[in-house]
Amino acid sequence: MLTVNVDLAAHAYPIHIGNHLLDRTELFAPHLMGSTVALITNATIEPLYAARLRSTLAPLGKRLIQIVLPDGEAHKHWETLNFIFTKLLTERADRKTTLIALGGGVVGDITGFAAACYMRGVPFIQVPTTLLAQVDSSVGGKTGINHPLGKNMLGAFHQPQAVIADTAVLRTLPARELAAGLAEIIKAGAIADAVFFDWIETHIDALNRGDETATIEAVRRSCEIKAQVVAADEREQGRRALLNFGHTFGHAIEVGLGYGRWLHGEAVGCGMVMAAALSQQLGLIDSATRTRLKRLIAAAHLPTQAPILGSDRYLDLMRVDKKTEAEQINCILLKRLGEAFVMRVPDHTLRAVLTASTQSDTAAEKPNT
Amino acid sequence: MLTVNVDLAAHAYPIHIGNHLLDRTELFAPHLMGSTVALITNATIEPLYAARLRSTLAPLGKRLIQIVLPDGEAHKHWETLNFIFTKLLTERADRKTTLIALGGGVVGDITGFAAACYMRGVPFIQVPTTLLAQVDSSVGGKTGINHPLGKNMLGAFHQPQAVIADTAVLRTLPARELAAGLAEIIKAGAIADAVFFDWIETHIDALNRGDETATIEAVRRSCEIKAQVVAADEREQGRRALLNFGHTFGHAIEVGLGYGRWLHGEAVGCGMVMAAALSQQLGLIDSATRTRLKRLIAAAHLPTQAPILGSDRYLDLMRVDKKTEAEQINCILLKRLGEAFVMRVPDHTLRAVLTASTQSDTAAEKPNT
Repeated sequence: MLTVNVDLAAHAYPIHIGNHLLDRTELFAPHLMGSTVALITNATIEPLYAARLRSTLAPLGKRLIQIVLPDGEAHKHWETLNFIFTKLLTERADRKTTLIALGGGVVGDITGFAAACYMRGVPFIQVPTTLLAQVDSSVGGKTGINHPLGKNMLGAFHQPQAVIADTAVLRTLPARELAAGLAEIIKAGAIADAVFFDWIETHIDALNRGDETATIEAVRRSCEIKAQVVAADEREQGRRALLNFGHTFGHAIEVGLGYGRWLHGEAVGCGMVMAAALSQQLGLIDSATRTRLKRLIAAAHLPTQAPILGSDRYLDLMRVDKKTEAEQINCILLKRLGEAFVMRVPDHTLRAVLTASTQSDTAAEKPNT
Repeated sequence: MLTVNVDLAAHAYPIHIGNHLLDRTELFAPHLMGSTVALITNATIEPLYAARLRSTLAPLGKRLIQIVLPDGEAHKHWETLNFIFTKLLTERADRKTTLIALGGGVVGDITGFAAACYMRGVPFIQVPTTLLAQVDSSVGGKTGINHPLGKNMLGAFHQPQAVIADTAVLRTLPARELAAGLAEIIKAGAIADAVFFDWIETHIDALNRGDETATIEAVRRSCEIKAQVVAADEREQGRRALLNFGHTFGHAIEVGLGYGRWLHGEAVGCGMVMAAALSQQLGLIDSATRTRLKRLIAAAHLPTQAPILGSDRYLDLMRVDKKTEAEQINCILLKRLGEAFVMRVPDHTLRAVLTASTQSDTAAEKPNT
């Protein structure tokens, strides 16, 4: 087991990474106050891992409330959140009840937001079961739900007591979701660590087939990079924005196609290709660098061609994105592989890139399903 | 104008108290970042004060979004909150948009919670227009909404940039709402300052008729007491619980009768009488002390007889109250006037007090309407 420590101003917490951590009672014990635990998961994960986690918690003698959500981004909205609140209140969960999020990014985000709001804040633990959630959504304290007018528009910064990332559970992960997780791993290298980017290129086949050693190392380094960025900028005032590399385009794709058509990681993968194209268009990187990033994303079985939504629709969706202040669009761009920065980009430049990105390849609109 | 400074770990802010502050552009100017301001008020307050506040803000050249909510505690729920989110997103409010809450406790609580959640947190200013909101709900950063299963069950701690309490607007306040505000002023004296309690007894007639000097002083001292308690315990782990004196009983009354039948302050007023009865029952205070508190609450035109809900229903409602951990009921009790503390009380003692409190007087069930 490897442990990455996240050091924040008011709160520090560990991310434990390794095989079969789901069975280790001693990793959960130090983080459970109060007499009650609420295990929150989804209908896909529940039959796979909930009984095992309940057995792991049993020796601690807590009262256990189990809440099973419908699976998928389409359910990451108020109604599902309120389902959690109603269940917690009906079962008399109190202010010391710890919520445990067992699932992917959606379960983690919504459970974290429930923990932030229930009785104005209760503790929670993340047990991410997808590669994406292990490397990205369970680190950094961002929680939230979608609004019909925008993704993740409602939420809170609420840090978990601990993240317990059991890499063995990734064996049951569909190939498409594994690829979606690789997108955030590639992103970590692209924005912050050229050496790690090289390492991913070398190990992409091992990562694609779920090799244990390579996966643990990739998760560790990605968490470390994200934890460092978050610790330096907990409330996303500056440097943390770099973690959104590929996300402004990616969010536009997700919302434009309708939540759930593309996985978040797929949209981010494609968004990074678009951001690289924009960086080249602005003369920041050369064609070879752009091609290198695009090839790695393709090698991870992620889509590299943007769906056709029309430039106006893209710009409209990108402007609603919450990284936007007032009417100008901030883009995260590459200076080189391993270094990113934020810049406002005029609409006409974006239009050129959007047109090119939706026409340049012959790949199908829908990613590998 | 008097100013009370609230000093919190991560954030300090001023509470300005005085007549006609609504017209003073310079009080708002330092707290408005970004290019957009969202003025959130209700249908009762809008025709009275919104135009004046818009004029005050006009010289600052901000884009102004106005959002008018339905009036009343019955609307302090998710649907109203979502109405705010939809309007903010439709109008493209961004992460630097400042929300201004112009209204009573409901507008303040819901606007504060909207500010806490919108894009994971935007700044807000409280402009409380009721006495209750000026002395209580605009100080301390507690924000939230009700759930059908409990009052204020969902919320966040989110501190305002400033509180601007214009005591002149209290002239349009209905007598019943003025009395409701006096409940929290009496509470501040009862739990923390015997000298202030004496002062309130002496000035209760002046306060009842809305005397300017007495009102400003009462608001100032109440805010000061609350600010001190909150600064010592921002997240309600310990001492801050004392501010809930009268509230565990009060919440049970509010929920038991249905939100909106009694005003929050009325329920707290009656709840303090019940808490004093409980304190006497436990041998903590003598009959004279209990009578003194009850007389002052009656002199403020607040109800002193609890509505008949049945002891079982009361206990059930008090147990769901979020001040409850696990299954025991924590009560805030008086040691003497000016000093309160928290104690767990067995059900049979509570039953005796609940039975006595709903039978002891001949006053009508419904407070002065």
